[in-house]
Amino acid sequence: MMDKRILTGEQIIVEVGNLKIGGNHPPIYIAGPCSVESKEQIMETAFQLKEIGVDVLRGGVFKPRTSPYAFQGLGIEGLEYLKEAGKATGLPIITELMDEKYMDVVAEHADIIQIGSRNMFNYSFLKTMGRLDKPILLKRGMCATIEEWVLAAEYIVAHGNKNVILCERGIRSYDHYTRNTLDLAAVPIMQKETGLPVIVDPSHGTGIRELVKPMSKAALACGANGLMIEVHPNPPCALSDGHQSLTFEEYEQVRRDK
Amino acid sequence: MMDKRILTGEQIIVEVGNLKIGGNHPPIYIAGPCSVESKEQIMETAFQLKEIGVDVLRGGVFKPRTSPYAFQGLGIEGLEYLKEAGKATGLPIITELMDEKYMDVVAEHADIIQIGSRNMFNYSFLKTMGRLDKPILLKRGMCATIEEWVLAAEYIVAHGNKNVILCERGIRSYDHYTRNTLDLAAVPIMQKETGLPVIVDPSHGTGIRELVKPMSKAALACGANGLMIEVHPNPPCALSDGHQSLTFEEYEQVRRDK
Amino acid sequence: MMDKRILTGEQIIVEVGNLKIGGNHPPIYIAGPCSVESKEQIMETAFQLKEIGVDVLRGGVFKPRTSPYAFQGLGIEGLEYLKEAGKATGLPIITELMDEKYMDVVAEHADIIQIGSRNMFNYSFLKTMGRLDKPILLKRGMCATIEEWVLAAEYIVAHGNKNVILCERGIRSYDHYTRNTLDLAAVPIMQKETGLPVIVDPSHGTGIRELVKPMSKAALACGANGLMIEVHPNPPCALSDGHQSLTFEEYEQVRRDK
Amino acid sequence: MMDKRILTGEQIIVEVGNLKIGGNHPPIYIAGPCSVESKEQIMETAFQLKEIGVDVLRGGVFKPRTSPYAFQGLGIEGLEYLKEAGKATGLPIITELMDEKYMDVVAEHADIIQIGSRNMFNYSFLKTMGRLDKPILLKRGMCATIEEWVLAAEYIVAHGNKNVILCERGIRSYDHYTRNTLDLAAVPIMQKETGLPVIVDPSHGTGIRELVKPMSKAALACGANGLMIEVHPNPPCALSDGHQSLTFEEYEQVRRDK
Repeated sequence: MMDKRILTGEQIIVEVGNLKIGGNHPPIYIAGPCSVESKEQIMETAFQLKEIGVDVLRGGVFKPRTSPYAFQGLGIEGLEYLKEAGKATGLPIITELMDEKYMDVVAEHADIIQIGSRNMFNYSFLKTMGRLDKPILLKRGMCATIEEWVLAAEYIVAHGNKNVILCERGIRSYDHYTRNTLDLAAVPIMQKETGLPVIVDPSHGTGIRELVKPMSKAALACGANGLMIEVHPNPPCALSDGHQSLTFEEYEQVRRDK
Repeated sequence: MMDKRILTGEQIIVEVGNLKIGGNHPPIYIAGPCSVESKEQIMETAFQLKEIGVDVLRGGVFKPRTSPYAFQGLGIEGLEYLKEAGKATGLPIITELMDEKYMDVVAEHADIIQIGSRNMFNYSFLKTMGRLDKPILLKRGMCATIEEWVLAAEYIVAHGNKNVILCERGIRSYDHYTRNTLDLAAVPIMQKETGLPVIVDPSHGTGIRELVKPMSKAALACGANGLMIEVHPNPPCALSDGHQSLTFEEYEQVRRDK
Repeated sequence: MMDKRILTGEQIIVEVGNLKIGGNHPPIYIAGPCSVESKEQIMETAFQLKEIGVDVLRGGVFKPRTSPYAFQGLGIEGLEYLKEAGKATGLPIITELMDEKYMDVVAEHADIIQIGSRNMFNYSFLKTMGRLDKPILLKRGMCATIEEWVLAAEYIVAHGNKNVILCERGIRSYDHYTRNTLDLAAVPIMQKETGLPVIVDPSHGTGIRELVKPMSKAALACGANGLMIEVHPNPPCALSDGHQSLTFEEYEQVRRDK
Repeated sequence: MMDKRILTGEQIIVEVGNLKIGGNHPPIYIAGPCSVESKEQIMETAFQLKEIGVDVLRGGVFKPRTSPYAFQGLGIEGLEYLKEAGKATGLPIITELMDEKYMDVVAEHADIIQIGSRNMFNYSFLKTMGRLDKPILLKRGMCATIEEWVLAAEYIVAHGNKNVILCERGIRSYDHYTRNTLDLAAVPIMQKETGLPVIVDPSHGTGIRELVKPMSKAALACGANGLMIEVHPNPPCALSDGHQSLTFEEYEQVRRDK
């Protein structure tokens, strides 16, 4: 890989309020529904997760969907619900930003901004995110090499923002038994190459509810700095990703067995 | 695949000035340098290509580069050079747009707007392109399935713009002998699934100069509606993609042997 | 790639009876059913193909099937039917050998021995094939790199048998719209790297009947030395690969449109 | 997947001498050099590993090498050294069989017979292995889907041998930072689909010495029934796979940190 890099592997700790992410700090838990669907849904989820144990509340409001005819998220309305749920429980919140047009409002409300897998190669967007003073969660592109992922992070850092958390979420392979192939070796590799915290998303990384628990344990065992898990009050009725979302009870088991 | 689609396979002819693309119209040739590097370079290229035979002049001015430290293109200045070269030769021009911030100026100058491989999954961007009254060239994402590519086109069409040209440019595989694996079966498949014209980019599709000619012939033999080829006055000195760019002489051979 | 190689790219012509394969000799057509199913089936196929135009008759008798419970081929009985059909029409025959136990009988009856995709990495088998005095058709492994394929051919040649025909039959990719991703760039690459003749199997390479014709044309356009096509008297009733087999009429069109 | 299967997911415990593999039995450790290189090398390795803690001694004597000109293993001579080392230390031994010609001698000496990644699709070979009364370690093919791997095991079991241990050793992906992409989700999946014990080979699965320890921990955390690790007295001088082999000290750390 290139010699000239700001990210040389020296350890970087990302702070979100009082939360410290990376290095030897305990792994963080980010959980919540794929999509914010209603005020009730996100409120119930937030309170339940708070009780079980969670560090950051996630909820998608702008959804990158393969089909233009699939549910695209509640947008600004959803963001407000998510914000309220965060406020009511005292939890920091994270949501994905897809479009610079909504950058200001998302940056105002969210504690962490997520760059989704489909935007990891969107270099204009990465540059803009680099100019924000806000922690960024950068998901690995669905077919990004280690080098491309490192350099995507470097785009953000080179434009001024060192608060980057990396998220391994599975890569695309020839086998479709699982939704993606979770590449756990990327955890120690990316920590060494960049020094940034690396968390794992076993929900997208497998796409299968039953695999979330064993893959969460494996992720922590190889040194992941946190987990990002989809949890829904009623997975079979979820508007998106129900098959990979945990119930509260299942999430509690993951939390307990860490 | 989904039932509800505007793109049902019924043939769509895209017009660019007097040029008709798709169906039984003769295949078009798009050629030019990966990057516009100077006024002289693009002028010389335009006149040479015009003489050899070309339908549209290409030239990158905003370059999506894996590293933040690589040459990022001349930007607006390059767009002006490209525009001048088009005007001087009477050739329509195409360039890639990466960032909505430059949409108006690119839409004003360019005859076709290119959406690069890295933005095929950028749904916000696709929606915006769908609202333009301008032909769009939509490259296949580097790991996009046929279904995802069809639905990316559907995003543009569903928002009002039916003038979409598809471009197969190779997909990512396990073998790195070539830069990408050119998937020519995608030509008849995408024509049947969408009805849109499908052209092939053998330069990115192989990354190897010597393979551009045989792959161009193969692309036309299986029904491609055109070719997009990188040509540079002096490939070894090109600021990007020199190893896959043809000299004028090599391009002339491709043109003659069609 | 390694320096030490017998296959340096110098052109090798493989002879099968009066048939010359490779270099500037006209492309050869190998056709027949995936599996020999009965004496009647292979006889009818042989006579029909002979009339339409074919150089070598193919028919599988030992079938490498993913499931142990799928039809495994007629074995020696099938080989005898194939032999009779070849004799009756004067056509040379090719069949796949999977097991050295049947090597002598296959070598006695067949004019070309096929090494299937699943055995390309079976180095013990390649060495044994290298000691035979019989043309070998070496299919590309389903995930073999160019380098691994070159070296598999080198295994055969290094053990004494230079009569090797290579066959591109598609590689495994992330997209399952087609059965495999036909990598036509491998045709000029392998010709240059090895000097051996390279033919293309568009039937396995796509797995879709409608794509056999356009991909056959593309293969010949980029210089393939021949085609290997599955043809069956009644594809919907075929015991294997019916969906990718052509009828006689469809094969006739491929033959005419070359 | 197919309905008709002997492997229905009901738990199978494989016994090797007093060693029980699978179910809730403690994970086993298989370790040793990629290749048996000399009597001294394998003896030293066996005694050191015995002291540190190991259940089965591995050593390759027939090596499937990509190039016909690379070191192909010591053959029968190596097998005798391995046998002696096993006897001297009281450790059961495992080695790869590539060629049925050596089946009897390998079956006589080895306690477990390994089927390498390149032979997972070699169905004739699998059938023969199914007729042996000897535990088989079946590595996953380098591009085998879950279904194909399940059915490869089914081939062995259907021919009479239920003593099959599965080994995940990484699959081929588009990224070559690591030698293979270790697919740990396959561990719980294959346990559930087949009921067979599943072990993990982090040495081939990553190809990088530093990753063996974190990936070993991850493998055990998600339920692997054992590990297979390459250890060499002097990795930089190994005749094969030195870059992924551990020293005795490094192996000791893996053993201790489990």
